[in-house]
Amino acid sequence: MGHDRHPLSPRLDHCPETLPAQAYFDQDWFRREQLTLWARNWVWAGRLNDLAPGTMQRRQIGVASVILCRTPEGEVSAFHNVCRHRGAELCSVDQQSMGKLVTCKYHAFAYAATDGRLVATGQAQPTADFDKRAHGLTKVSIMVWNGFVVLNLLPDPGPLRPDTGLGALDNWPMDSLVTGHRAVNEVAGNWKILWENYNECLHCATIHPELSDLVPIYKQGVMAQNEEPGWTPEADLRPAMKPGAASWTLSGKPCGPEFPGLTQAERAAGYLFVTLYPTAFIVAHVDYVRAVVFEPLGPERTRVTVEWYFAQETLDQPGFDAAEVAAFAKLVLAQDAEVVELNQRGLRSPAYTRGRLMPEEYAIRDFDAWVLQEMEDYK
Amino acid sequence: MGHDRHPLSPRLDHCPETLPAQAYFDQDWFRREQLTLWARNWVWAGRLNDLAPGTMQRRQIGVASVILCRTPEGEVSAFHNVCRHRGAELCSVDQQSMGKLVTCKYHAFAYAATDGRLVATGQAQPTADFDKRAHGLTKVSIMVWNGFVVLNLLPDPGPLRPDTGLGALDNWPMDSLVTGHRAVNEVAGNWKILWENYNECLHCATIHPELSDLVPIYKQGVMAQNEEPGWTPEADLRPAMKPGAASWTLSGKPCGPEFPGLTQAERAAGYLFVTLYPTAFIVAHVDYVRAVVFEPLGPERTRVTVEWYFAQETLDQPGFDAAEVAAFAKLVLAQDAEVVELNQRGLRSPAYTRGRLMPEEYAIRDFDAWVLQEMEDYK
Amino acid sequence: MGHDRHPLSPRLDHCPETLPAQAYFDQDWFRREQLTLWARNWVWAGRLNDLAPGTMQRRQIGVASVILCRTPEGEVSAFHNVCRHRGAELCSVDQQSMGKLVTCKYHAFAYAATDGRLVATGQAQPTADFDKRAHGLTKVSIMVWNGFVVLNLLPDPGPLRPDTGLGALDNWPMDSLVTGHRAVNEVAGNWKILWENYNECLHCATIHPELSDLVPIYKQGVMAQNEEPGWTPEADLRPAMKPGAASWTLSGKPCGPEFPGLTQAERAAGYLFVTLYPTAFIVAHVDYVRAVVFEPLGPERTRVTVEWYFAQETLDQPGFDAAEVAAFAKLVLAQDAEVVELNQRGLRSPAYTRGRLMPEEYAIRDFDAWVLQEMEDYK
Repeated sequence: MGHDRHPLSPRLDHCPETLPAQAYFDQDWFRREQLTLWARNWVWAGRLNDLAPGTMQRRQIGVASVILCRTPEGEVSAFHNVCRHRGAELCSVDQQSMGKLVTCKYHAFAYAATDGRLVATGQAQPTADFDKRAHGLTKVSIMVWNGFVVLNLLPDPGPLRPDTGLGALDNWPMDSLVTGHRAVNEVAGNWKILWENYNECLHCATIHPELSDLVPIYKQGVMAQNEEPGWTPEADLRPAMKPGAASWTLSGKPCGPEFPGLTQAERAAGYLFVTLYPTAFIVAHVDYVRAVVFEPLGPERTRVTVEWYFAQETLDQPGFDAAEVAAFAKLVLAQDAEVVELNQRGLRSPAYTRGRLMPEEYAIRDFDAWVLQEMEDYK
Repeated sequence: MGHDRHPLSPRLDHCPETLPAQAYFDQDWFRREQLTLWARNWVWAGRLNDLAPGTMQRRQIGVASVILCRTPEGEVSAFHNVCRHRGAELCSVDQQSMGKLVTCKYHAFAYAATDGRLVATGQAQPTADFDKRAHGLTKVSIMVWNGFVVLNLLPDPGPLRPDTGLGALDNWPMDSLVTGHRAVNEVAGNWKILWENYNECLHCATIHPELSDLVPIYKQGVMAQNEEPGWTPEADLRPAMKPGAASWTLSGKPCGPEFPGLTQAERAAGYLFVTLYPTAFIVAHVDYVRAVVFEPLGPERTRVTVEWYFAQETLDQPGFDAAEVAAFAKLVLAQDAEVVELNQRGLRSPAYTRGRLMPEEYAIRDFDAWVLQEMEDYK
Repeated sequence: MGHDRHPLSPRLDHCPETLPAQAYFDQDWFRREQLTLWARNWVWAGRLNDLAPGTMQRRQIGVASVILCRTPEGEVSAFHNVCRHRGAELCSVDQQSMGKLVTCKYHAFAYAATDGRLVATGQAQPTADFDKRAHGLTKVSIMVWNGFVVLNLLPDPGPLRPDTGLGALDNWPMDSLVTGHRAVNEVAGNWKILWENYNECLHCATIHPELSDLVPIYKQGVMAQNEEPGWTPEADLRPAMKPGAASWTLSGKPCGPEFPGLTQAERAAGYLFVTLYPTAFIVAHVDYVRAVVFEPLGPERTRVTVEWYFAQETLDQPGFDAAEVAAFAKLVLAQDAEVVELNQRGLRSPAYTRGRLMPEEYAIRDFDAWVLQEMEDYK
């Protein structure tokens, strides 16, 4: 990409069309997304440390219910949440304790938690034609990256997307972070509207006054200095945050010691976004890290889970209140949720078939193109 | 029509079939109605005086959400409730104040309230290929008839149906009436069942005892004297209301001064119905006027809005209570709603494919024929 | 059947596949079941004595609403719950009083309660082309077996299935039983899951500890002694109930006098199951009889009605409490409902297409084959 951009800026040199309206409410479009891009991309599943040994957690990847297991010995695995005998659900709660086996409550079919192989069939005595080895749990691929768990419905997925830019977090102590706060909300909007809202800042000045005060460039409707008129690669990067502010908190002050390994530029920037389509984005600050995770519950409903990660020494500060740190991002996300729902409600208008993107919405164009490409690839 | 009627009466000379059962619950039938008869007929939108200058109101025409705008200078316009940028809803409440512009809350795209032209794109700087003139709001046609607003989704609709018989209201001071009371209810029935119920009085004797007491002819199951056996055009029209009653109120007494311009026959009749398919019917009495408006919310759900209109001097009477006047029609409408829901519930029976109309149900036959004609015409 | 069984036992000699997953949630599959097996099999409708003369009751057979009528003279009939005029529902409550006529509330069309013929059309005066004889209520077939009512949507159904084994109840005084208790619940599961759960006891040991204590053989995961290894037809049948227990009550004691006509073997067995696909099963004990009735409300929802029947002398015992007797079966049924819902929730997993039955699940295999046969037969 880039051939349709202004020479020195990511801005588009034209105003392309948006996705068609039905992409945001049609059941068939939604189902196709589930079978393609949600079925083969890595999905964010939080900190491994939040999954205690001897615990099973239930997760949702698109329409698939999944169990994330950790044996008492600490081994981690993930499977589709369904028994191979007659289809009963294996785990019916968000979290439950477990031993070495995943046992179906209905007929006591038991599977090894490590690899899902069928170990026992309760009181049933299958005949020889029943091959136990062919009736283990269906595996979900799992990977741990710096203490974070990611899941993939493919049996043999590629690496965590090489182009995600996770490498940009190399100077952050991702491996030792601790979850200090979590918030879960449902938004009455298609998951792609959430991503499109994420991908432009034309709405910042009016929708996010507090954030635009903290990050003055946002007030101009752009996401980065390279979008500004007259910018050249040679220009110095000015600080993005307003004078005196160093992190995304209500006061602008860091909530604890700054991470020691950051470069001067990383500290000056005040924030770093890493985008992991379709599942999550991560925002790293000098003092804490945040992940925002999207789970489609239906064409017009999305669950948004946000987690705030801190260094242990930050959490250990006397009187430290992670909820107070989280308040700033919660405010911004609530503002986003409101306009996402506003957008969703308009899309069913018989007068709307599709819209037009503005040059500043280059990242939406890239996202929409990625979605279409992922859906087309499907065989 | 009329070739299948009794020589001197509107009664049918045979018992035709009703519409098929699925006309009342099938999603595809409903969608087709939306694309045809609801998309091109005028829809009742109440008194212009109830839309103050500097106000925007949200309305629903079938599945289309519409904004009805009145500039501070008093100019009136209507548009589809959707922004041309990325499809956000423009108005999310029943009513809000406005200036000269309709501004999208999401990205501040602003449109002229008078003609919908795109005036500003917020902070976005569209490239030359984006033709602002091609991205104005989608207009909804609007007309004001005697102080009442009607809307039409067609860009260039014909006149308010010439055959509606609105001319019959010429002696009523429609232009100066004032809304004194409003009631909104939802009925669990298809909008056509409401019209069919309106179009016959075979149910009056048992379902509407109070109304049948007030209008004795209804007790016989007919809607007008010309349906009675032995009626001839030469026969005198007897008064329709019972002796001593002059209007549709709980007491039968007028609620205020009689409108001065009515003829003797109009006063004697006591009521006059004007039918505006598919949207509303108007009932004019000697002392007040009432409009009943149907809005389909789905195949099996309809919103019914009723407004009562009075002369200002009637409203100004000491101790006048419009709700008390409204009580009589509310009673009758509640009785109708109950049988409409009874009818709707039966239609999904596997034993019912379609019914038979009685000769007295000639007006249902005409309505059903109108519906089929409107749906067939669609190209 | 039987060619795929072990020589001396009903156990299967292989592990066949279950029905496909969509059989339990797909709307089309459900609709096809309604048009086939639910539209032509007899459906349990309770004790005739619970339908007093001069009473009408509303029932549901699949998607069809049905009225069960008993004239003041005691004659019994059943019809589809819909008026032939314009499709209004005739009965909108569970039960109401009635005379010789079924009268539509909307326009007073009246039908003879005995045979459904159209007797009157209210105030409507149909023309000669309207043949009253062709517009009677649509009959539902009715039969009374030993004081129990069964219904069939077919106009001319065959006998109550000859292979149901109702004859096994010949020694029970079915004709004179009285309903002492009734319980109605809705389960979030397909009706076939309820039957499949009924058709195996592999789940008994873990899901039904109290029942397995009362009927020790259930603890071994089998339903009858002939499933046990080493069983031969020549072997004596040992008592199925634990020592000292004679009926399915919380204490194991009978709740009243034992039915006098039972054989020694019937008394020793302690329970007898009679299966009436697709509608109900009956369990006869030495002291009372129970019917469990399934009504599909949708692909993933089923109403379960249970009735407890007693001899009059049992009910007449001082201090007798039928609810206390019912408590035991209610406990077992609640345990079943929980695993049925567990099973239903798992079936939509993309990892589950169909399962495998165990040899002990021979009765599920027979049920599944019956379902497929009934659906295939349809012309």
